[in-house]
Amino acid sequence: MSIQETAKALRKRTVSSVELTRDSLRRIATLDPSLRAFITVTEEVAENQARQADQDLAAGLDRGPLQGIPVAVKDVFCTVGIPTTCGSKLFAGHLPAHDAAVVERLKTAGAVIVGKTNMHELAYGVTSANPHFGTVRNPWDLERIAGGSSGGSGSAVAAGLVQMAMGSDTGGSIRIPASFCGTVGLKPSFGRVSRYGVLPLDFSLDHMGPMTRCVRDAALTLNALAGFDPRDETSSRRLVEPYLPPEPVTIQGVRIGLPENFYFERISSAVAGAVKRAARLAEEAGAVVATIRVPDIPHLNTVGRIILLCEAAATMERYLHRREDFGPDVLALLDQGRLIPATDYINAQRMRRVLRQEFQSVWKQVDCLFTPAAPTSAPKIGQMTIDLGETEDIRIASTRLVRAVNVLGVPAMSLPCGFDEQGLPLGLQIIGPSFREAFILKVGAAIEDALGLTKRRPPV
Amino acid sequence: MSIQETAKALRKRTVSSVELTRDSLRRIATLDPSLRAFITVTEEVAENQARQADQDLAAGLDRGPLQGIPVAVKDVFCTVGIPTTCGSKLFAGHLPAHDAAVVERLKTAGAVIVGKTNMHELAYGVTSANPHFGTVRNPWDLERIAGGSSGGSGSAVAAGLVQMAMGSDTGGSIRIPASFCGTVGLKPSFGRVSRYGVLPLDFSLDHMGPMTRCVRDAALTLNALAGFDPRDETSSRRLVEPYLPPEPVTIQGVRIGLPENFYFERISSAVAGAVKRAARLAEEAGAVVATIRVPDIPHLNTVGRIILLCEAAATMERYLHRREDFGPDVLALLDQGRLIPATDYINAQRMRRVLRQEFQSVWKQVDCLFTPAAPTSAPKIGQMTIDLGETEDIRIASTRLVRAVNVLGVPAMSLPCGFDEQGLPLGLQIIGPSFREAFILKVGAAIEDALGLTKRRPPV
Repeated sequence: MSIQETAKALRKRTVSSVELTRDSLRRIATLDPSLRAFITVTEEVAENQARQADQDLAAGLDRGPLQGIPVAVKDVFCTVGIPTTCGSKLFAGHLPAHDAAVVERLKTAGAVIVGKTNMHELAYGVTSANPHFGTVRNPWDLERIAGGSSGGSGSAVAAGLVQMAMGSDTGGSIRIPASFCGTVGLKPSFGRVSRYGVLPLDFSLDHMGPMTRCVRDAALTLNALAGFDPRDETSSRRLVEPYLPPEPVTIQGVRIGLPENFYFERISSAVAGAVKRAARLAEEAGAVVATIRVPDIPHLNTVGRIILLCEAAATMERYLHRREDFGPDVLALLDQGRLIPATDYINAQRMRRVLRQEFQSVWKQVDCLFTPAAPTSAPKIGQMTIDLGETEDIRIASTRLVRAVNVLGVPAMSLPCGFDEQGLPLGLQIIGPSFREAFILKVGAAIEDALGLTKRRPPV
Repeated sequence: MSIQETAKALRKRTVSSVELTRDSLRRIATLDPSLRAFITVTEEVAENQARQADQDLAAGLDRGPLQGIPVAVKDVFCTVGIPTTCGSKLFAGHLPAHDAAVVERLKTAGAVIVGKTNMHELAYGVTSANPHFGTVRNPWDLERIAGGSSGGSGSAVAAGLVQMAMGSDTGGSIRIPASFCGTVGLKPSFGRVSRYGVLPLDFSLDHMGPMTRCVRDAALTLNALAGFDPRDETSSRRLVEPYLPPEPVTIQGVRIGLPENFYFERISSAVAGAVKRAARLAEEAGAVVATIRVPDIPHLNTVGRIILLCEAAATMERYLHRREDFGPDVLALLDQGRLIPATDYINAQRMRRVLRQEFQSVWKQVDCLFTPAAPTSAPKIGQMTIDLGETEDIRIASTRLVRAVNVLGVPAMSLPCGFDEQGLPLGLQIIGPSFREAFILKVGAAIEDALGLTKRRPPV
């Protein structure tokens, strides 16, 4: 069931939030020992929230479609009185005094928070092989990674443990696990969703967004999350839109760009085929698909890597004397960041402004871009490289289709667009201009309807 | 004569712009061989502009008080077809294709630009002892520096070569020469005056502003300069105000803060006395003067120095292979900047945000601050240190009262507030909240009227 369907059932009293929540907690109890999608499960709090949701609905107090729905949040989001670790040993005993803005908004919307999801340590990596809390496993194949850094959220949603889980995305950390786990993952525009109360990895690249089973669930979650927050200095005052597309969804005349210089030569043939099929379906639905050239994506990726290395090191520098408390991969990245001179960082930020300006030209030609979200389906646990003509570090390969979007700050969504020969899900990335979330959600909903994939569930 | 008086005389035809301009060029020809205030004198262009101003005025085409007034601009401002060196050998042959926004606006206002003023090499220093274009001398004592980096502009205005000269201020570069030369120097709020077409030293600290003989001349110049410019991405869309204060000027009830922790223990007794006398006169005029504590100025100064070292090095890095084209002091600063890790720069920028926030509390207690602009009168040429209890590098001593203001981005003005026992001028700095230029100009005009110092001229 989608969140919309569940919300209807709750209002018809064919199901209660307490039932849904107990079912969610039961599934977690059964499946999470193998999935490792959660760091903390909050049975008692969830049970209370669910009871409250049922009471409120019975009393006619309707808070919208998230009311009574079991959800989870990545363990970067502060939750008052509930451990918030950021997947790190550094914050093992951390009991926040305040909720993150996202958590406040989910509570206001009546959502039932069943727990905090596992993640790559400090949100700084793509595998979610967390040395402190275990390796998150992919429900489509337990020997494969869920992707990262929001791997626990991807795994939990894909396995049906919750209907929505929040992620954070600094260089692909929502879209990569969405692609690997076969969920929808939305990274909104920079400034659209408040970052107040989130343990930061990189203050100029971090974005918060939902992971769900279908596009409309992401849209209605964004309805609850979006808006100005004075406590986050990067929060935008731009008015929010209704994000759920009006039905029936139509994409007649929408101009879709297929960027020919978006690494299409270095993605698996299954991924290339699935993305092209999605574009063909869009065309059949009335969209105009054109192959275009976009500005220098490798350059944007390099700029993004330099900025992330430096800003993450600056944020974490004060903890770096506790070297034994870090996993080796994260420690190495933080150490690398400290070696970069300020002039390189400053020139990367200057180049970022130039490249953002250049990228504006794309939106004169097309309304959105279709690209792959990841070059392959989910790699195996322990796999360090990906070989598609040349051998790449798994971090480089997994982020090269998504990182540039964080540098630009524009919205992007990954949604399932097919399966490879091993039955593993593949992700389509839809990228749009700043603050056009409503538009890319509409396009995504149309593609999802045309593909009809959302009913296919993982074997767990 | 003030610009206002000259403007009246031009309109009464008791003087023409051509006469004023020739007089200005004559004074330059006579005095500049010793002052070295100019890098380029533009006789022909000026003569044409003056003739045009006279014609326009005769035809009733009134462009406001700057029309027909001889002015100069620091050699950081691009002037189409006229050499723009930034005081550096690097740009010796540079003939810009466009005017800087400031130059455009001065031309629109009908000002006559007689030349480009000398400066500290690349605007990166406080002495204006330029190894390529000569040491700017102080008209009050030719053995003393004019200050920097806008030393030529300060010297030219003080010696009566022009009635207004434009400066740029990254860490005090308008207010230091204003203080040493006995002129008014206004650094407007960050974003108030466009930086388009200015060779940058530091994009997050550079400010453009006028140097004049009296406060009202600075105000009417700001009227011509202020406003949004889409070509400068840091330009503010905030509406401009009329900057010339309504007469008679009154400061009844204005709350003035004398910050007790603003290095008052390390300024000369003459400076301390002059600033306190200015505060007393303000009190007599109806203002309320209170001693207050302000947030950590040394910390703001440190943050400012780190940011400047890094951003200047990032801007100039591509020229650093031409080592013989730099003066030794500037080269050493650029080399230092390259050694700073990105994490230190990023943490300085983060600390800057915190300190800016903290400083807001000051404006709840007082409307403006009175501080010295420099700890002493103008040092001797060649002098490398200043001793006031402890021996400081002249760059540290000269900037420690002014640099913090650039980090904050708020407006500040230096105006003459007295003379020391050697007959050298001393500067009062008035600092106000962001975009309150009209207010600090009003307070400055009242203090200037009460002091009655503007008629005293240097001996040249």
